[in-house]
Amino acid sequence: MPRHQGKGVGAPVPAVFSLAMFEIDPAFLATSQVVGDLALSHVRLQSDIRFPWIVLIPRRSDARELEDLAPGERDVLMEEILRAGTAVRAIAKALGRPAAKLNVAQLGNVTPQLHVHVIARRPDDAAWPAPVWGMGVAEPYPRAALEAALTAARLTLGL
Amino acid sequence: MPRHQGKGVGAPVPAVFSLAMFEIDPAFLATSQVVGDLALSHVRLQSDIRFPWIVLIPRRSDARELEDLAPGERDVLMEEILRAGTAVRAIAKALGRPAAKLNVAQLGNVTPQLHVHVIARRPDDAAWPAPVWGMGVAEPYPRAALEAALTAARLTLGL
Repeated sequence: MPRHQGKGVGAPVPAVFSLAMFEIDPAFLATSQVVGDLALSHVRLQSDIRFPWIVLIPRRSDARELEDLAPGERDVLMEEILRAGTAVRAIAKALGRPAAKLNVAQLGNVTPQLHVHVIARRPDDAAWPAPVWGMGVAEPYPRAALEAALTAARLTLGL
Repeated sequence: MPRHQGKGVGAPVPAVFSLAMFEIDPAFLATSQVVGDLALSHVRLQSDIRFPWIVLIPRRSDARELEDLAPGERDVLMEEILRAGTAVRAIAKALGRPAAKLNVAQLGNVTPQLHVHVIARRPDDAAWPAPVWGMGVAEPYPRAALEAALTAARLTLGL
């Protein structure tokens, strides 16, 4: 049974079929918290208080590269990246460390399921000016800070 | 006097005036070669044969983040990122090391002028699975390989 786009595989309502078949790579479940869902992307907060950091996972099974999305979906993703940028700025502010720069990346060398990192950076953060990946060890959010971060993200994203 | 692509510099129409005001950060001149210009972005080949690597620099003065582009420009940038992906795949093939994965990133912590990295990756490359930034020392292209890479990029991009 195909797990990719429902397009033409015989499902009576392709969009719903495709949504129902989408599964998040377990690697994300271990390292991040659910924020909610935008039109295209499942949105997660990376469980690392060192960096206000959202991961967007377009709900398209088997997508690994931007080229695996339809052109219209890529434009939606671009707008969701912008909204995620606003959200990580809001998280950064809620944590008392306003962002100085945004970092956006689609890598997937370790976890191939298509996803985009959107991260708020500051010259005094734990990795600056290097990228954040592979830098030290993630620091979990204390419960109150996690609630503040999730609330800031959801308010900004209208979720 | 602008040192980048001369296309239209000095012609008396507003769009060209805006082009004439755009200047590439000298940091890019030291580390990359001109490929050409797409509709929005100046395109450069990173001078590091370890990774087939294109840098897209939207010709918008003072832009530092994706949010500094107009929505229509962001959609153009997304399509230019896709085209750059095809180009780095072509470079990788021309160098005899076809790509297994693409990496796309907009960071700018060191060089703030808005730019997007598009990089072809392989499990046997010098940084895999880590991102490429800050990994070892760039290896310059020998002349023939540089010509092959630039030709592959320009053919793919129609430049």
